[in-house]
Formats: sequence, C-alpha cells, structure tokens
Amino acid sequence: MTTPQAAPHLTGEMFLGSRRVRGEAGSVRAVDPRTGEEVGPEYGFGTAVEVDVAASLAARAHAVYRATGPEERAAFLERIADEITALGDTLVAQVLLETGLPEPRVRGEIGRTTGQLRLFASVVRDGTFHGARIEPALPDRTPLPRPDLRQRQVPLGPVAVFGASNFPLAFSVAGGDTASALAAGCPVVVKAHEAHPGTSELVGGAVAAAVAASGLPEGVFSMVYGEGPVVGTALAEHPAIRAVGFTGSRRAGTALMAAAAARPVPIPVYAEMSSTNPVFLLPGALAADAAGLAQGFVASLTTGAGQLCTSPGLVFGVAGPELDAFVDAVAQALAASPAQTMLTPGIHASYETGLDRLSSADDVQVVARGAEPAADGAAATAGSAAVFATAARTLADRPALGEENFGASSLVVTVDDAADLAGVAADLEGQLTATVHAVASDHAAAATLLPVLEDKVGRILFNGWPTGVDVGRAMVHGGPFPATSDGRSTSVGTLAIERFLRPVAYQDVPAALLPPAVADGNPLGIWRQVDGELVRG
Amino acid sequence: MTTPQAAPHLTGEMFLGSRRVRGEAGSVRAVDPRTGEEVGPEYGFGTAVEVDVAASLAARAHAVYRATGPEERAAFLERIADEITALGDTLVAQVLLETGLPEPRVRGEIGRTTGQLRLFASVVRDGTFHGARIEPALPDRTPLPRPDLRQRQVPLGPVAVFGASNFPLAFSVAGGDTASALAAGCPVVVKAHEAHPGTSELVGGAVAAAVAASGLPEGVFSMVYGEGPVVGTALAEHPAIRAVGFTGSRRAGTALMAAAAARPVPIPVYAEMSSTNPVFLLPGALAADAAGLAQGFVASLTTGAGQLCTSPGLVFGVAGPELDAFVDAVAQALAASPAQTMLTPGIHASYETGLDRLSSADDVQVVARGAEPAADGAAATAGSAAVFATAARTLADRPALGEENFGASSLVVTVDDAADLAGVAADLEGQLTATVHAVASDHAAAATLLPVLEDKVGRILFNGWPTGVDVGRAMVHGGPFPATSDGRSTSVGTLAIERFLRPVAYQDVPAALLPPAVADGNPLGIWRQVDGELVRG
Repeated sequence: MTTPQAAPHLTGEMFLGSRRVRGEAGSVRAVDPRTGEEVGPEYGFGTAVEVDVAASLAARAHAVYRATGPEERAAFLERIADEITALGDTLVAQVLLETGLPEPRVRGEIGRTTGQLRLFASVVRDGTFHGARIEPALPDRTPLPRPDLRQRQVPLGPVAVFGASNFPLAFSVAGGDTASALAAGCPVVVKAHEAHPGTSELVGGAVAAAVAASGLPEGVFSMVYGEGPVVGTALAEHPAIRAVGFTGSRRAGTALMAAAAARPVPIPVYAEMSSTNPVFLLPGALAADAAGLAQGFVASLTTGAGQLCTSPGLVFGVAGPELDAFVDAVAQALAASPAQTMLTPGIHASYETGLDRLSSADDVQVVARGAEPAADGAAATAGSAAVFATAARTLADRPALGEENFGASSLVVTVDDAADLAGVAADLEGQLTATVHAVASDHAAAATLLPVLEDKVGRILFNGWPTGVDVGRAMVHGGPFPATSDGRSTSVGTLAIERFLRPVAYQDVPAALLPPAVADGNPLGIWRQVDGELVRG
Repeated sequence: MTTPQAAPHLTGEMFLGSRRVRGEAGSVRAVDPRTGEEVGPEYGFGTAVEVDVAASLAARAHAVYRATGPEERAAFLERIADEITALGDTLVAQVLLETGLPEPRVRGEIGRTTGQLRLFASVVRDGTFHGARIEPALPDRTPLPRPDLRQRQVPLGPVAVFGASNFPLAFSVAGGDTASALAAGCPVVVKAHEAHPGTSELVGGAVAAAVAASGLPEGVFSMVYGEGPVVGTALAEHPAIRAVGFTGSRRAGTALMAAAAARPVPIPVYAEMSSTNPVFLLPGALAADAAGLAQGFVASLTTGAGQLCTSPGLVFGVAGPELDAFVDAVAQALAASPAQTMLTPGIHASYETGLDRLSSADDVQVVARGAEPAADGAAATAGSAAVFATAARTLADRPALGEENFGASSLVVTVDDAADLAGVAADLEGQLTATVHAVASDHAAAATLLPVLEDKVGRILFNGWPTGVDVGRAMVHGGPFPATSDGRSTSVGTLAIERFLRPVAYQDVPAALLPPAVADGNPLGIWRQVDGELVRG
C-alpha cells in the first residue's frame, strides 16, 4: 500500500517548452480531499503572456514535428509511457494525495494511460490514419484527362488540451487527447487541472523529458497553470492554436465552444461535457433477475464515487412488481455502500446541492441513500450515493430533473408500458452511452429502441454497465451535444486520432516532392486506396 | 445549339415532400443575365412555416431512410441521375436562360452532376464509408476481460443544403452536398438559390420523382424558396436539421456558422466561402516559359467569367525580367479576351465595385483589362477580366487587397527573392487551392514551400491551374477558414460522405440485433477493421 504523500522536488513551475517558469498571477495549492488540507508547494498561475510563449513555441515546433516519420513519432509516444512508468510509486502517492481515489484505481489508470500511449504508437506505425488515396493520371480519359491526384490527412497544428479532474492521468496531461494529438503530429499545450497540480507537474515532467530525449523541438509540449477565464480563454483564443480538447463541465465546455467560434479564425473544439447514460431495463430482463441487475447497477453507480463521465444517472423501466423488486434491491445494496471520498471540495459541494435539489423536488421520491459518512474520521469530501425515482411524465415536464449530477446520483424513471421506452429515449439529450438490459424475449422491443439510441448516443451496450471504457480500436467515447461539443468524434480509442487531422489533395505533384504516405512505391508500407481499391502493395 | 428559353410547365412552387406548395411571402422571378429581363413564372417565397413542414417531414423520413440497404440507396441515387438526364434539352435551355453560361459548360455540368450521383452510388455499394471496426470479446484478457466492441458510422440526420449561384447544377439542388448527404443516409432540405429558380424547380422535380419512384418516404427530399435571412436562418435553426451544407459568400457563410453555433443544440456547418487560390511562379518555370504560363493563367482566370471558387486571384513571382515577360504576355492575352456574361446583376455589380477598389488603390497597378463589352448588343451583366499588380510588402500592409473579388480579377504580387515565397505563403488566409509552377531546378524551393502550403490549403497542384475540379476519390475541395468553415472536410469527391456521418460503438450487442455493417459474417461484404487488420472476409 502506497502512502499518499507529496512527491519530493515539486516546484510549482510550468513547462514552457524546455524552460521551467513560475507563474506570478496568483497560485493554487493541492488539497488532500480526505482532510481538506492544502499540501505541497504553491503552483503559480500564468497569464496570457505565458500562453503566448507556449503557443508560439508550439507553432515553431509544428513545422518540424508534423514531418516526423512513423518510427520517430511512435518511439516518442512510447518514451512518454516509459517516463511515466519510471515515476513509479512517487506518482501513485501523489495521485492518492491529490484525489483520494482508491489505489487500485490509480494504478489501473496509470496502466491505461501508458497503454493508450503505446496503442497510439501502434496506430502511428500502422499508418492507416494517413487516409492515403491515389488516383493515377488518366491522360486519355474523355472528355477531360484525369490529373494525378493523391490525398492524405495532415495534422491540424498545435492543440490545446484541458486536463479533467476525474481522470488525473488518463484524461489529463498525458491522457487521451494529448496522446491522440501527438500521434496525429500536433504539438500540445496543456492547461493543467488545479485539482491535481502535483500530478500534473510529475507527468508534465515525464513528457518534457521524453521530448528532450527524443531530440524533438521543445515546443512539442508545454504545460501551464492558471485560471480558466484567463489562461484557458487565452489558449482557446490564441492564433497559433488550431484545436481544443477538453473534458469537464457543460458550463466550461460551452464557454470554450463560444470562444473558439468567436475567433477571427474559428477552430474545432472537442469538449466532452455531460451525460446521464440512460439504462433501459426491458421487462424480460427485469423479470429474469431484478436482484442481479440491482447489484450490477449499484456497483456501476458507485464506481469512483460516481465521478465518471459514463456513470448511470438515469434508469428507465416499466412500472410493476419487477421494477419494484429492482428498486428494493437497489435500496438494500445502496444502504451497505460506504460513503466515498470525492475528488475536490467543489465537486463534493456541487454534488450535495444536486442531491438537495432532487430530494426536495415535487413528484420525485428518494429511493435510497448510501451509508452516511462516519461521524468521525470521515473524509472532508465524503459523499453518499443516492437513488431517486419519478414518473416519465414528470421528467417530460421538467427535463432538468434528468440532468447530470456529477457523482453517485441516479434517477429511476417509470414508464407505463414497454412501448413507451422508445418515446422517452427520443426525448433525451445527446449522451455518451445508452445501456439496454434484454433477454431473448425482449429483442423485438430492443430492435425498436436501438435505432432511436443510435441517433442519441456514442456507445450502445447490452447487458452490462456503462462505466469502464475499453481503450481499443472500436470504442466510441463521444456522442451528440451536450454529451460532447462535436458528436463526429471520440476521445477514447484509436479513432480519436482523426479529430486532429484534415485532408489535403496533391495534384500532379512531382514524385520527388510527394510526402511518403502518398509517394510511389508505398515507402511506408501502409494501406492505401488506389483507384478505389484498398491495397498495401 | 440549344435556344435559351423557359421550360414549359414551371409553376414557381416549392416541394414539401411530395406536395407542391406555393410560397406566399414574396416572390422572385428569374433574370436572363444577358438582357436583364425577368423570365418565367413567379417563384413564391416560403417562411419558417414551410421550413418547419419540410424539416419535420425530413425528421420522420430519417428513421426509414437511414436504414436503407446499399442497393436501395445506390439505386435511388442513380434514379436521380436518370431523372436529371431525362430532362434533356429542357434543362439545358433553362440553365442557359437563367445563368448566361456557355452551352458546353452547362452540358458538362449536367454530366458532372449525374456523374457524382453515380459515383456516390458506387461509394454506397462499396461500403468502406461505414468505417466498420470489430474487436471480438476477449473474456480471458487481464486485468479485465474485453467486451465485444464494434463500431460503424451512422448518418447525422436531416441536412440543409444551400444551393450555390455559380454551379446551378453541380453545387445546387442535386449537387455535391445533396449527393453526399443522401449517400450517407441523410434526408435533405434544399434552399434553392434565387439566381436559378427554374433550374431548381426542374431538378427538384427530378429528385422528388426519384423519391417517389424508389418508394422512399416523401420527406427524404424537400426544396424551399425564400430569403436567406428568413428561410435560410429558419432552416439552420430548425431542431430537426442536423448539419448544413453551403456554398456562397463569406458573409452569408459566417452568418450560418453563427446561427448554427447559437442553437440550443449546435450543429456542424460545411460552408465553402471564399478563396483566392494563390499561384506561385518559381524562377525556373518562369524562365523556361513565361509566355506559356501567361496563356494558361489567362485561360484559367477567364473560365466561367472567373466565377469559380478556384479562380486564380493571386499570383506570386520574383520581380525581374522573367516576371515582366509573364505580365506582358498576360496583358496581351487579356486584351484579346472578350467580355463575358456574368451570372446575375448583383454579382456583376459587386465585381465592378471590386475592380474600382483595386484600380484606385495606392501602390496597385492595372496590368491589363480584358476587352470592353461591345457598345451595343452586349449582355447586361457583361464583365471584362482584369489583372493588377502590387508588391508583397503592400499586400502585407493591406491584406484586404488580396481578398476574393468574385469574377475574373487577379493580383500579381512581386517578391524580391524566391526565398521570400514561403514567407508570403505563411501570411495567407486559408485557401481551397495553391498552385506551384516549377521545373526541376525549382524543386528545392518548392520543397520549402510545400509544407507551408499543406498548412494553408485543401489542394496543392503543380504545373497546372486550379480551375477544373476533378470529382474523384482523392479530390479535396476544402481548406482552412475562410476558404471553408471547417477544413476537416471536402465538398467534392467521395470523402465528402464523411461530413454527414458520426461513429457509434456497439458493446456486447446480441448478434441478432447488430446492424449489417458490423454483423457477424460480413453480410455486406465490405472492408472492415477486425482486431486492427483490414479484411473483407
């Protein structure tokens, strides 16, 4: 067991390329959420000045970094993974100290973070992401000859990444957005999340060390501390920044969307914001195992104190004894569920406010609460899970009841008839996930529901639970607004590389000048579409 | 030779699904740009009411149309092409009447329009656009089992398409945006361009006939007439509309971007807006054949009276006798270039205003003008080509000099040294195209220029001219803002289908419920990525 304690040698400085710089525009210290105490050094906030330095370094690095070959770029990603791994227990202890997360989760998240860096290294080597297409010249075509046309995807340019509070590693400094942007060939400027500044410094140091060890231009990676309205806005508005990756609240995400759209040159924003991840309990599945579903639900709801983007915040079922049995079993399981340390005092306070709102709402019943925090010795941010219930018509009248309350809070919504489920699904906002529990006798109803869900969410899962996002090649962690700002993309899985690319066509470009991805003889050995056929020759 | 004349039986009515409806909120008549006379019936303008009918029909059709199989959807696209072809000389005459374009161009554009519908039919049958990925379950994986994960691209939903004035067929009612949206599985609501309302009615009728003949829901296609600020805005703001395709002015395009971003649920806007398509004449190429380059340039500049998105509006070269020879040859060729009928009185007036602005600008020289329109018998909208010259430092000080003047107007910009070319390229706004003229001795300079251009444009071409966009699988007709609103996409070529798709993941979905693109046994016979390997088995 690792003892949560501040890493030695933390400086509280930012990374502006290879330089360590102390911000002078205010500061923050880390807070141990179990005690509410400040720990570690002061992390100095930057201003638009440091943002300009970082973004300008990134712009200069772009010209070199975009041209790196597959082996060089892949080895760099692997080197970042190695540097993070080398932090060992120092990193684990720092994350424990700053987040209060359970140690197995922290160790697992380190593995996920290094794993996705290595996965993107394999994507870079595979090279399908180049989207190479070749249409050789047809000089004799009528009525007009066809020129030689080739197409590949090029990196957008410097990307601003905003670390998330709830995944201090996998969605933060060297998390998914950073890995996919670097894989695409884009330099990255990270705005560190103030909820885990020391973790950010450690990981930022690992990335900076990898940049140096790989002989890349220093501007490939920078990291700043600062207040969102100052440093975050300055980043999103900086002319050198070409895209934004963000995971956080709907308020902050939509503010970034507005800032990016108002720029003289608008840029894409990939903001993952809020999702209630509806679960549909079909009648056959409920009849078959209401108690088992309840156990699975409570386990999913309470994972990470509910502080997951995919936490199941809405459950739909047909009113009746089977649903009653489910609710009873949920209440029983929840009562035995201990209070958990939440990530920050702010998140904890917001969660409690959300619970109060639901508890006092008309036509909403409190189904169950998790165990209260112990009278003494409890963490300062201890939060108990909660499940509420209401009728579909109440939710239809007051859709705000169904909005995300970040934490282990969920609302069971009853419909009168299974045939109503597709209708309530159609009324939902965009979501990251939707879950269907169904047995064979439910398949007809599920087949009706499925296309409605395809239109609403990024991932549909059956007979499981939405928490736990597998980082692979077929994953989609995205979905229509407000789940994300841009449902055409994913922030998890190999497809994420595409969000930082755009196509360029080459017409009659001399062979000697063609980039390798579309050069004659396929020097990269990648899959290419030639005259409409995929070939790797 | 086809006589320009109004088609019989034009009604001036809109298509709201299968219903023909006359708009009552004002009207427009077509104008023959050669005479300035109004011709044909009154086309009645709709309001937000008709937009709501059309968008609601599209939303209803979406559920059915998105589920069409490849053969059904491909045959529908081909049927549209057949219906357009069947319009024959009636369509040719109507386009000639409303646009004043030369007949070969009109016939060519009909071929391009039907050709791209057939090309997208082949894309639908090929099925690679599904982006199918499969990662089979790994129940024994540690530390966690892997679920069965599959991914495919699904259609966004109803798309609003805004017809362009300058391609009354290929970028209008059944043009590229409509073809790619329908291929993706998205219903379409077109706002017809008032510059060719009769052409729009004929083509709209062809699409509506194809919808009916294919047994598809009527809402798959609607077409409205109306004023941009009323009907266009209502379309972009309608909750059922999920994406916008637009080709037109920067002012109208950015207004649509703002409207889409301000929606409660923002949607993607694909607006192709403005581009000056810089041409770089490298010293070796100029020395080798200044006269030939001048001929090619003038031919490209005057194609379609310069009313092409890819018209070469900026030419960069090194000051010296070779560039002087080029400019002299341009002046000579231009003087022999006849005035041409422009598309509308508004475009003609705007073009003349732009010429006046450049003619009276300090430090800008008038290099040459095309022949003046004949004193009598000239078209009401006859415009003469014009070429101006200035120094790079003047353009740097006053970048507005380099903005698009839609029509056959171009600015030759002199630099002092070939080494300056990459720098002036880096200062350009986003462009659809960049052209490089280079011989072998220029390749070193070209290699320096190329990555700068990759960062600025959607298509790079060598030793040719940017006008003439080949509709194929490797074409990119797009580019960074302000060339388009979203440089991650193309409006021409098969990649355009991707702008109307987004990814969905299926986790542990029962085999019987999986959509065909990701079903076991690959029933569609398409390329799929299985465990990271592309296979078609």
